[in-house]
Amino acid sequence: MTDTGAITLKPIGKVRTSYERLADCPPTGHANPDDSVLELDDWFADGLLNAELSTHLIVLYWFDRADRTALHRKTRPGEVRRGVFASRTPHRPNPIALSVVRLLAHEGNRLRVSGLDCLDGTAILDIKIYDPHTDCIPEARLDFESYCHQSTCGCHAVPTAQNAEN
Amino acid sequence: MTDTGAITLKPIGKVRTSYERLADCPPTGHANPDDSVLELDDWFADGLLNAELSTHLIVLYWFDRADRTALHRKTRPGEVRRGVFASRTPHRPNPIALSVVRLLAHEGNRLRVSGLDCLDGTAILDIKIYDPHTDCIPEARLDFESYCHQSTCGCHAVPTAQNAEN
Repeated sequence: MTDTGAITLKPIGKVRTSYERLADCPPTGHANPDDSVLELDDWFADGLLNAELSTHLIVLYWFDRADRTALHRKTRPGEVRRGVFASRTPHRPNPIALSVVRLLAHEGNRLRVSGLDCLDGTAILDIKIYDPHTDCIPEARLDFESYCHQSTCGCHAVPTAQNAEN
Repeated sequence: MTDTGAITLKPIGKVRTSYERLADCPPTGHANPDDSVLELDDWFADGLLNAELSTHLIVLYWFDRADRTALHRKTRPGEVRRGVFASRTPHRPNPIALSVVRLLAHEGNRLRVSGLDCLDGTAILDIKIYDPHTDCIPEARLDFESYCHQSTCGCHAVPTAQNAEN
């Protein structure tokens, strides 16, 4: 049996974006036309060795403004009610954000990436290589009719932005 | 600027598997022929409302036996040296494990899933729906020649198991 007591994390760096207010953030990382930078604290820079051998990375970061007491996702008119674990809302008991990003460049303690949409200064918790053999499930399905507020809205991407429900 | 001080997580439940020793765990979740159960603490059960509307979930859990000081992945003969953030090793500063699982059944505070390979009792940190529109990147590439110790080993799946490098 493993221990299930409280767990302490130490951020390894910060995300550098051009967004200083939630209202400025794009709705999803894919909608962000600008690159972002994953800037690791110097002590962790060595952990990036040969990151450039992978084209994509998974970034775990921290939604520091989340409501950690929420158990249901806010719903829009006509939308099926969902629990926070049946959604991608930032508001959840352990608000760890997850984005898949494309790696554009690696220099020292900095990775330039595309596909992020969070606030400048957001704490980075972890970076992993993206393995299409285990992480890409093309047959996966969401019930979009329930998830989106209207079937013609074009919003078939789940909101992953820090501002999606703020 | 967001705060980058220490962050505290509270596990939301435990993974139930048939594996009580690291040596018994399969090398990857995909290699596990048995189903697993995500058993949430009663207080969090409501957060699973309508989880069954998605076919796949992302599970974040905790590698409590990880070496949190490691910055390089252990290498096998002939393998390129990599930083921990350029790998899926469980040994990393914030050892948050990530697996994509198939949801088989939802009953109360329990989700029966396939695709997990961790120890019985492993702490669950978060559950999210898997969205193929943002999470499935079929064009992603790893440099497998460098990642695997031999190109003919068949090991093109990145080790994600808790025991992969123990």
